[in-house]
Amino acid sequence: MAVQAKTKKIYDDIRTLRIQGADEAAAAALEALRIEGLASKARNRKDFFSDLRASALYLKTVRPTEPELRNALRLVFTAVHKSPSDDVAELKHGLDKQVEKYEENLKKVRGKIAEYGARLVPDGGTVLVHCHSGSVVAVLKKAFDEEIDFKVFACETRPLYQGRKTARQLSEYGIPTTLVVDSAARLVLTRFMRDSDVVLVGADAITSEGDLVNKIGTSQVALSAFEHEKHVYSCAGTHKFDPLTLWGSGEPIEERDSSEVAVSGDFKLKKFPKALHVFNPAFDVTEAKYVNAFVTELGVLPPQSLVMAVWKELGLSEKQLI
Amino acid sequence: MAVQAKTKKIYDDIRTLRIQGADEAAAAALEALRIEGLASKARNRKDFFSDLRASALYLKTVRPTEPELRNALRLVFTAVHKSPSDDVAELKHGLDKQVEKYEENLKKVRGKIAEYGARLVPDGGTVLVHCHSGSVVAVLKKAFDEEIDFKVFACETRPLYQGRKTARQLSEYGIPTTLVVDSAARLVLTRFMRDSDVVLVGADAITSEGDLVNKIGTSQVALSAFEHEKHVYSCAGTHKFDPLTLWGSGEPIEERDSSEVAVSGDFKLKKFPKALHVFNPAFDVTEAKYVNAFVTELGVLPPQSLVMAVWKELGLSEKQLI
Amino acid sequence: MAVQAKTKKIYDDIRTLRIQGADEAAAAALEALRIEGLASKARNRKDFFSDLRASALYLKTVRPTEPELRNALRLVFTAVHKSPSDDVAELKHGLDKQVEKYEENLKKVRGKIAEYGARLVPDGGTVLVHCHSGSVVAVLKKAFDEEIDFKVFACETRPLYQGRKTARQLSEYGIPTTLVVDSAARLVLTRFMRDSDVVLVGADAITSEGDLVNKIGTSQVALSAFEHEKHVYSCAGTHKFDPLTLWGSGEPIEERDSSEVAVSGDFKLKKFPKALHVFNPAFDVTEAKYVNAFVTELGVLPPQSLVMAVWKELGLSEKQLI
Amino acid sequence: MAVQAKTKKIYDDIRTLRIQGADEAAAAALEALRIEGLASKARNRKDFFSDLRASALYLKTVRPTEPELRNALRLVFTAVHKSPSDDVAELKHGLDKQVEKYEENLKKVRGKIAEYGARLVPDGGTVLVHCHSGSVVAVLKKAFDEEIDFKVFACETRPLYQGRKTARQLSEYGIPTTLVVDSAARLVLTRFMRDSDVVLVGADAITSEGDLVNKIGTSQVALSAFEHEKHVYSCAGTHKFDPLTLWGSGEPIEERDSSEVAVSGDFKLKKFPKALHVFNPAFDVTEAKYVNAFVTELGVLPPQSLVMAVWKELGLSEKQLI
Amino acid sequence: MAVQAKTKKIYDDIRTLRIQGADEAAAAALEALRIEGLASKARNRKDFFSDLRASALYLKTVRPTEPELRNALRLVFTAVHKSPSDDVAELKHGLDKQVEKYEENLKKVRGKIAEYGARLVPDGGTVLVHCHSGSVVAVLKKAFDEEIDFKVFACETRPLYQGRKTARQLSEYGIPTTLVVDSAARLVLTRFMRDSDVVLVGADAITSEGDLVNKIGTSQVALSAFEHEKHVYSCAGTHKFDPLTLWGSGEPIEERDSSEVAVSGDFKLKKFPKALHVFNPAFDVTEAKYVNAFVTELGVLPPQSLVMAVWKELGLSEKQLI
Amino acid sequence: MAVQAKTKKIYDDIRTLRIQGADEAAAAALEALRIEGLASKARNRKDFFSDLRASALYLKTVRPTEPELRNALRLVFTAVHKSPSDDVAELKHGLDKQVEKYEENLKKVRGKIAEYGARLVPDGGTVLVHCHSGSVVAVLKKAFDEEIDFKVFACETRPLYQGRKTARQLSEYGIPTTLVVDSAARLVLTRFMRDSDVVLVGADAITSEGDLVNKIGTSQVALSAFEHEKHVYSCAGTHKFDPLTLWGSGEPIEERDSSEVAVSGDFKLKKFPKALHVFNPAFDVTEAKYVNAFVTELGVLPPQSLVMAVWKELGLSEKQLI
Repeated sequence: MAVQAKTKKIYDDIRTLRIQGADEAAAAALEALRIEGLASKARNRKDFFSDLRASALYLKTVRPTEPELRNALRLVFTAVHKSPSDDVAELKHGLDKQVEKYEENLKKVRGKIAEYGARLVPDGGTVLVHCHSGSVVAVLKKAFDEEIDFKVFACETRPLYQGRKTARQLSEYGIPTTLVVDSAARLVLTRFMRDSDVVLVGADAITSEGDLVNKIGTSQVALSAFEHEKHVYSCAGTHKFDPLTLWGSGEPIEERDSSEVAVSGDFKLKKFPKALHVFNPAFDVTEAKYVNAFVTELGVLPPQSLVMAVWKELGLSEKQLI
Repeated sequence: MAVQAKTKKIYDDIRTLRIQGADEAAAAALEALRIEGLASKARNRKDFFSDLRASALYLKTVRPTEPELRNALRLVFTAVHKSPSDDVAELKHGLDKQVEKYEENLKKVRGKIAEYGARLVPDGGTVLVHCHSGSVVAVLKKAFDEEIDFKVFACETRPLYQGRKTARQLSEYGIPTTLVVDSAARLVLTRFMRDSDVVLVGADAITSEGDLVNKIGTSQVALSAFEHEKHVYSCAGTHKFDPLTLWGSGEPIEERDSSEVAVSGDFKLKKFPKALHVFNPAFDVTEAKYVNAFVTELGVLPPQSLVMAVWKELGLSEKQLI
Repeated sequence: MAVQAKTKKIYDDIRTLRIQGADEAAAAALEALRIEGLASKARNRKDFFSDLRASALYLKTVRPTEPELRNALRLVFTAVHKSPSDDVAELKHGLDKQVEKYEENLKKVRGKIAEYGARLVPDGGTVLVHCHSGSVVAVLKKAFDEEIDFKVFACETRPLYQGRKTARQLSEYGIPTTLVVDSAARLVLTRFMRDSDVVLVGADAITSEGDLVNKIGTSQVALSAFEHEKHVYSCAGTHKFDPLTLWGSGEPIEERDSSEVAVSGDFKLKKFPKALHVFNPAFDVTEAKYVNAFVTELGVLPPQSLVMAVWKELGLSEKQLI
Repeated sequence: MAVQAKTKKIYDDIRTLRIQGADEAAAAALEALRIEGLASKARNRKDFFSDLRASALYLKTVRPTEPELRNALRLVFTAVHKSPSDDVAELKHGLDKQVEKYEENLKKVRGKIAEYGARLVPDGGTVLVHCHSGSVVAVLKKAFDEEIDFKVFACETRPLYQGRKTARQLSEYGIPTTLVVDSAARLVLTRFMRDSDVVLVGADAITSEGDLVNKIGTSQVALSAFEHEKHVYSCAGTHKFDPLTLWGSGEPIEERDSSEVAVSGDFKLKKFPKALHVFNPAFDVTEAKYVNAFVTELGVLPPQSLVMAVWKELGLSEKQLI
Repeated sequence: MAVQAKTKKIYDDIRTLRIQGADEAAAAALEALRIEGLASKARNRKDFFSDLRASALYLKTVRPTEPELRNALRLVFTAVHKSPSDDVAELKHGLDKQVEKYEENLKKVRGKIAEYGARLVPDGGTVLVHCHSGSVVAVLKKAFDEEIDFKVFACETRPLYQGRKTARQLSEYGIPTTLVVDSAARLVLTRFMRDSDVVLVGADAITSEGDLVNKIGTSQVALSAFEHEKHVYSCAGTHKFDPLTLWGSGEPIEERDSSEVAVSGDFKLKKFPKALHVFNPAFDVTEAKYVNAFVTELGVLPPQSLVMAVWKELGLSEKQLI
Repeated sequence: MAVQAKTKKIYDDIRTLRIQGADEAAAAALEALRIEGLASKARNRKDFFSDLRASALYLKTVRPTEPELRNALRLVFTAVHKSPSDDVAELKHGLDKQVEKYEENLKKVRGKIAEYGARLVPDGGTVLVHCHSGSVVAVLKKAFDEEIDFKVFACETRPLYQGRKTARQLSEYGIPTTLVVDSAARLVLTRFMRDSDVVLVGADAITSEGDLVNKIGTSQVALSAFEHEKHVYSCAGTHKFDPLTLWGSGEPIEERDSSEVAVSGDFKLKKFPKALHVFNPAFDVTEAKYVNAFVTELGVLPPQSLVMAVWKELGLSEKQLI
């Protein structure tokens, strides 16, 4: 598809992970939609929306596991489409507004999640986190601001060590944080956690069955937490809900390059024996039974309630415009 | 304690992990016991055993979590002590023989474990291994020699990546081996394992309750395997049984240096914010309920049977000479 | 109650299982309602609905465990009742239309279930089914049409061997299908299933607690699937929801004739020793915790969400007309 | 805060448990709100509501764990506030009406719970109850009235023996009731319960995660029931739902005086050795996974459905007037 | 191998299941060993044992899953071999005696199992049995003789309906017995069983991990019993222990002819669509965690104790004569 | 049976619980056996043992659930019987010695249990105990003597409040002890316990399946501990093993007088409505799967190992003299 140069760059940056994080990717995709929309040469409503739809569909293909990005494109498109106007200039203005509105809304969503999540942080207690999630960091900073006294254990999260980013951000903020290898999560649960101590993770996607798709390793931590009777919360706005799962589609699990696993010093791929391979899945699925609740902008909701809350809020319907 | 220079070196090498592996450490400690015993200036039986006991007790302190080393010293000491001789030269000769005998016996033990374990490897199936264990590698090579067709998933085993050693040794032998990050173990169980596929691990210590003390992360893999109804086997000679646990002592969990976790590139300890710490446990405990059986030189025995088998074989008694 | 001959025949055919399947029974009962309604001699609205209610109540008694039939009668009755008309002819016309509409709607429901369910069938995977369900067969045929490559294990489903019907229909369609005795379900799960492989069953009733009432044996298969971490889906339109359970009524479990169990050759009831009996329950209850989701026309919903979705869609209220 | 003498007395009676039971406390608090409202000297709408809000906020502090009381105050306040009137007399009249309406409504709620719950009582079966709950007693009496044949086991519920009150009320009504110590609940489940036998308890609060906060010991009974595959129902109107939990607040667990535990004869606190303490929590938390359903005025709903049903019914919103 | 005609017939009868039951097959194989031994033309000890070993090895191949048969041959061979005699006539006489002794011993074993097992039958209670086992029938008859009042539910055990044999034998003895389809086992557990009610099954083999290999379906019944907190006992002499499993060998699961599943009336294999297959496994594996104890001649022992008890009693050693 | 007055008094004191505790009861029964033996008028060996057996059998009937008492009588009887002497005076002397020896041995057993158990008490941790057990108190005092820093939660143990005795003894010794009602055990586990914190209980009997028969409520505490992944230890000498269970006998559960439950103030039995009853079981059964190990004089052994250890040590055989 012929697109603006900027759009192409955004597309590539998302695809190659130069733009990281689901929120960031969604924002970038909307930016690209705006660029394309404003650049449309359409003279009438019909043509404008035909152009806009094509751009949206193109942008939706950038990554397989990005419900937030797809939701963002669909929501903005639908909102612009609601305007009955036939004036393309007005529609372009509407597009501009809706993209802005989406971003403002996202900020509010994050604020709510931080607020609600902070109240779940146990005073005098311990929080175990896996990987890096902007929402989880926001929750913990908010709790710290409110003078809740707690400490954090952060799993380093191989292969890309995003847990280090979490650990650095929290400790720089003053929150006592202990870094552990991913394998030590169960021992941390056994040795240091009791009472209302919690596990906090983000979310890459939420399915209609209430399952959580998140960074590889999340399901192991959640299983151990379940075994130890500790609550597991996923901090995630409702825009992480993947409506396609409602109609039976599975959430694909991205596999990433083996060089991420086999990169250091003397352990490079090119030196590998023939029979040696690498399997490098980016996500795993934590079944609803291992998630106590999602911390969303609508409140703290168990998985099965979240599905209905999203439905109610978003008026989900299979007959969507894009 | 004043010891021979060689003995001191061996002691330090074990302590600083230059000598790695429980079998290797036990062999080295026996070597040191032999050096000390042969160097004894005692003129009579009483003095000789007084010297030998002192050496043995010194060597037992080298590491907290080494039942095999302690068992080896005790077994050899007791065997030499059984000789009624009053002739120190004869007793020294006996010491020499017993050290040799212990090592020969260890070789036989490994042979038996490899033989029995190989029969548990599923033809056409998949084996998941964690960390590096000489016994597990021996089992898998034996199975490969016997033309069993299987593939292996090896967890990389942070922080020291011993899983890479496993993966390299197996793949160089021709066994199809796939390396995964530790966090991916549960997904491997979900996606690739079924039927009689098994998890194989080694053992650092076995307690009288049948619990398995092994490399950090083992208990998470075993928990996931239990959740997926897959059998977990620990390949370990009965010399890994820690008799002290029979009398109530817990198995201490060694914590290792934080630099092992925070070592790479821009993530060094000295650059850490004040609030950032590292917790680096070397082992965790896999409860007996998550271990189907130990593969020992006596056969494939469930944890609770192993305790009794060791008792029966070794004639355990609290009144030990050392 | 005095009814038309045709109505009587339909009633008897449902009762004696000459008309089999919940959808078929519901359709037949509506047909009978239409017959009775059209035959009504009432001269005014009040009398007409009095007649119609009597017919509906009579038809509702035909079998104890048929929420779909009861739902169908109630929905059609309520829809006809909504017309404000006083003209009996018009009301009869309305009845005619509503019965038709119900059946059209049912067809659409089945189409949606087939579509959504087909997306849950794992490409390259395995599906385990129990008993015979039109919806499950439709799902699997749809998946086959869409060139998903899968195979099926079908439990034979004693005593009436409905699994053979499933196996025949699927294999005649070209889907590789393997028939097993009911007792072999757990071994099939152990030996042949992994990853996203699923268990698919139908539904005779769904309770407000999210429990699934279905053919005897379903709960054992679901329990084994749960133990093996496999997803269990019940393919069932929302018309299988029994609203009475919302108000505390239990779902009765029909017991059927012992001759179904003791019928073959030399094992007939009349030859039984006095102390020998047969217990032949038609259904069992699979608790919500063992059902991952229901595949309905509204989407793939976990049990607890389904309850709310039905409520929202159907506007359930205890104050119903019949 | 300066309040009417009667109000002060009510406040103190609730705080010191002279007024017992969540329904009773809520009713008393409303009574106090009415007293204060009617006594308001405000001349205009604004001042009246300022007074009323102050009273409501004061009354809300009386006990930490009383969502019903807080819900009652909020609902009545909001309803009065809806009147657009500027006439203080009219607003006072409205307050009067709303308090009455709340109480009438509560009566209806109890009637519905009794009706729906009674249908869950197994004919020929056994019911296990813990503590004293007006709703549970109402359910059992209703079932008895409807000639359901059942017997009850009642846990005595230390430290205040509220189970004796339950046992007395039921047995005086003619229901065969057996009193057991709290420790015997699991043995009762093992020895006497099967099939559709149930555990019935009340509720002090319900959280947005679907967890049940109820009298200490409830979670142990529910855990044992779960282990024995018996259904656990909490009989509780939706007014027991604590909306604050939706926004992340935990439900505080009240600790009560140690004299309740150490009161009898020779076992008084003042005679205690220095190292002897008492821990006397009033409630514990039964996680949603151990509760099959709540029996509410809206129907029998699983925990996760209840959250959404309350939301739908009550139009919950964080922006509340009080 | 050239064998006596009678031996050949016995061999074939065992192979084709004309001789059914593990005890019966073992007895027949010993009979054949006797025939061959007595017919030996050997003139000296060495030749005689060479002949006898050949016969024993031949007989051991008759079926893959028959540890009892293999144990019987090994035990008798070893016992005869112990005699130091060089006189072939004397050795033949010894063989004769040992075969007799084995059979007498088996009778005693059965008596002990009946005696111990009968004490586990709950007075006033219910027993659930799967398939047909001589030991289980003996236990129940013994309990009935001792005036224990109980009733039995027997699963019919597809495909060969051995449960009917059980039901007939028990009911003819006067024991109230109810036949159910295999799928109804879980409902029987839910509806009719409580307190010390038990599940009784036989055993085809017991592994060194304490797992029970028994008729297909056993593991589903045991899983449901475990879920319902009911004790599961396998009535089996220690001769069902398969010593090969101690050294790592798996117990093979026999697959039987598909005609057993697809045999009746209009459902014959030859009429099958091409895509329709049958999978007909004879056994499944019930993991040790689902078996409370084995009822053996040594007493009622949990799986892990049994392994050690057999070891102790039988002096198991890998270095066996045959 | 005609017995000495002192014997009669001992018998009655045991029966009416004036002599409390299994150790105390066993000692008293042996004392009575000694009295009776010494008072025997027999002139020869045969008559003496006939008398002694009669006395022993009489004493064994005093309480149904006392394996320790039965074991003590049997052990002493057997030991005396071993003497080949025909001289009654000598046999009486032997009886005297054996009773003494038994008691000395018991003291040693208790010492060992205290020693081994003390090593399981977590330094800086928490111990939860249920009921009163001399062994558990000895373990905790020993741990305190060894300067282990820990605190204890003690369940009060209705109906007889034996937990108060535990709490008093421990706190008087200086051990920080917190008393809770039995219902609070799970909350104590949730709120205060982590890492290697343990549950310690005594034992009234141990069965051959490894099940623990102990004070009512033990199984609930153990179930909650299992749910929270905490280790449960039963401190009990091997003399608590009931050999009769090896041969299939169940351990009877004593029911005690209802006045124990319904005793205080206004809640007396005579004031009860007709429909009000009390069920007052003295013990419950904690299944082997919920007990990590028994702390015995032989060491810390998992349930299934204990059975074999006892067998090995005690040379159990069904053919016992009494």
